[in-house]
Amino acid sequence: MTRAYLGLGANLGDREASIRGALARLDATPGIRVVRQSTLRETEPVGGPPQGPYLNGVAEIDTTLPAYALLALCKACERDAGRDFDAERNAPRPLDLDVLLFGDERIDTRDLVVPHPRMHERSFVAQPLAELGVALPPAPTFPRVVHAPDEFTALAIEWTRGDCRTGLVPTMGALHEGHVSLMRRARRECDRVAATIFVNPLQFDQSADLEAYPRDLDRDLAICRDAGVDAVFAPAPASMYPEAFASHVAVGSEAEGMEGAVRAGHFAGVATVVAKLFVVARADRAYFGEKDAQQLAVVRRLAIDLGVGTEIVGCPIVRESDGLAMSSRNARLGPRDRAASTVLHRALRVARDAFREGERSAAALVASARAQLDTEPLCATEYLELRHERTLASLGDDALPDTGARMLVAARFDTDSACETRLIDNMSLAGD
Amino acid sequence: MTRAYLGLGANLGDREASIRGALARLDATPGIRVVRQSTLRETEPVGGPPQGPYLNGVAEIDTTLPAYALLALCKACERDAGRDFDAERNAPRPLDLDVLLFGDERIDTRDLVVPHPRMHERSFVAQPLAELGVALPPAPTFPRVVHAPDEFTALAIEWTRGDCRTGLVPTMGALHEGHVSLMRRARRECDRVAATIFVNPLQFDQSADLEAYPRDLDRDLAICRDAGVDAVFAPAPASMYPEAFASHVAVGSEAEGMEGAVRAGHFAGVATVVAKLFVVARADRAYFGEKDAQQLAVVRRLAIDLGVGTEIVGCPIVRESDGLAMSSRNARLGPRDRAASTVLHRALRVARDAFREGERSAAALVASARAQLDTEPLCATEYLELRHERTLASLGDDALPDTGARMLVAARFDTDSACETRLIDNMSLAGD
Repeated sequence: MTRAYLGLGANLGDREASIRGALARLDATPGIRVVRQSTLRETEPVGGPPQGPYLNGVAEIDTTLPAYALLALCKACERDAGRDFDAERNAPRPLDLDVLLFGDERIDTRDLVVPHPRMHERSFVAQPLAELGVALPPAPTFPRVVHAPDEFTALAIEWTRGDCRTGLVPTMGALHEGHVSLMRRARRECDRVAATIFVNPLQFDQSADLEAYPRDLDRDLAICRDAGVDAVFAPAPASMYPEAFASHVAVGSEAEGMEGAVRAGHFAGVATVVAKLFVVARADRAYFGEKDAQQLAVVRRLAIDLGVGTEIVGCPIVRESDGLAMSSRNARLGPRDRAASTVLHRALRVARDAFREGERSAAALVASARAQLDTEPLCATEYLELRHERTLASLGDDALPDTGARMLVAARFDTDSACETRLIDNMSLAGD
Repeated sequence: MTRAYLGLGANLGDREASIRGALARLDATPGIRVVRQSTLRETEPVGGPPQGPYLNGVAEIDTTLPAYALLALCKACERDAGRDFDAERNAPRPLDLDVLLFGDERIDTRDLVVPHPRMHERSFVAQPLAELGVALPPAPTFPRVVHAPDEFTALAIEWTRGDCRTGLVPTMGALHEGHVSLMRRARRECDRVAATIFVNPLQFDQSADLEAYPRDLDRDLAICRDAGVDAVFAPAPASMYPEAFASHVAVGSEAEGMEGAVRAGHFAGVATVVAKLFVVARADRAYFGEKDAQQLAVVRRLAIDLGVGTEIVGCPIVRESDGLAMSSRNARLGPRDRAASTVLHRALRVARDAFREGERSAAALVASARAQLDTEPLCATEYLELRHERTLASLGDDALPDTGARMLVAARFDTDSACETRLIDNMSLAGD
């Protein structure tokens, strides 16, 4: 037997009759007893179109039914009272029943979250509960922060059980607008969004780079909250790579050349951590920025090969107003390097414009971008390559097809940066 | 609105009043309308203690509730009618309501399976349905056979959503009593059991061995059915390793020496396929035989490292009556090799007996087993080693602790076998 509390509301038709009728029907339902109810009070509607005031209250019930069955019965009462489930959000309604509390249970499913997440903000719920002498549970904090991998998996399983479509945004923290664009897209497409914040030691070939990588969890959590992230997985390195950790995941040709050539072991580290994150998170979709295009190709390969069941979503590069691709490393650039760094985007645009004007020779396109890079003496180019649009396979020297290709560039800047800073950028020649 | 059918039964108290009362209460429940019902008929109880006859029938209902809510309401009716849910299986009961059909839905959860899986065997259900003019859906076939990895993941997610604890038994087919012991244990400990049958090409270093490996899916499926397996995942190699497959998973010291030394690339292949099976299956527990002790150590390492969330359960070796460890390869042995093969078990027992009698010198224990192996001229020993009981780490030459160690042996037999046959065996010196 569980003691539960239902929020009661109506602002169409005979409001009191609708509420009393629903409570009488619930009381007659197998497994439910209506114990008592608060007084009903008039309240102003929240949001939605112009509409009349609500009659609101709270009912205390005892039930042997599980919470989801109680929710289904509340919906059946609403339907029978004539509620239009296709109406706009916050439209007027003849009956509105919410499961506010269900014993001590915490429930997080697509259709039911208990304790009701907006209970604390709503006086038309809080006051009737107070009248019944019911103490509100502590207000939930967002995002939920999880440190242990098995706890994160447990949350993933809870969401799956609750029929939620889940989105994952793996990051190394130091969040910027690029990350936020991934989170917002995940928020639009999924019922629950988890971000991971983990500076993965395996993928750094330089320990100085690992140590210099910016870390500020509180700042990052605030950004996640504003972007609508439900949970953040922020493991300690020791919990991701416990003593005696000995596994690694490797992928094939996607990891060769470019970043794979410059940064020894980088993609083996990326593949291992991303495989582990996918395995632990069990997400329906995972969101990656196209800025790390080679990483995205490695991740796509790995997700297919291991059969993780996670759809990989590549998202457009977010740029500063002057074209520099957003990166956590940009903050390290001194003012002269920062000014010089815009050459990367300019060089890619030169090639894209040439492609749009009909140039199909790979050598000519690379030469046009190279010439632009050479105008900036502070830019030490590491590589400039044309690759297959999506797989990043090598293209050879043939003419490009009209479907285009992707140009990728990496360069070092060390004139007045805090330390030598590598920047990467890329662009689809046929893309938008 | 869904049309559903409920099985009705009672064999305690006023049977007809209980059934009619429950239907009246369901008809008054929000979201449910009882459309019609069959006649009620007397039937003999199935199983259980001596008890009076049942009154049985079927009700047709229309409902806007989901199936699980309908199930919860049926349970509430049973509870209110005085049913004792702690009573033994098939005990007499004042009310028994079953969800038989729920529209066209196929539901497979821990608490609810629809269409009801034993509907076809039970005339007290089938006859009332026929009276109402309802055609029975095709009887389900067991085990369910799944070939595509993503279909297997979808089944795993369905089971997880249905709150099922799931067990996985990975095999290469050619099933014998050793496999059956794993399946039966999984059946006892889990709500749903999946076996995998996949002869993994990655883990064979000899293509002749791969081709010679016995394959008989129909025979294996019959064995799975008898062992209570719910689903069999039997992928084609091309669906596990599609074109452009490029990933591999490697583990550390567990894969070194012994089988890892004799069979080049074997454990890299094992780790890759097991990782993929774990990722695809998302099981709560996976069952492996201790015969492949080094494989078990590799799998434990990999499961921890990748954080698959699957508990690895090692199960005792099943032996023939003369001590030979069960193996799919035993069938290849000619009669003389078969007789000679028992020396492996004898040698391990000699060492175990010496350990039990107080011998703690690793060298002396190995020598005692070696001497026994040397009595059998048809046995070509490949290795004989003492390793850490569980991790199989090397022990050095020191005296053993009283907690013991594991002795592992591998040998070839080729006197009258169909082809050269390698056998492995092992034993815990301190174990049972």
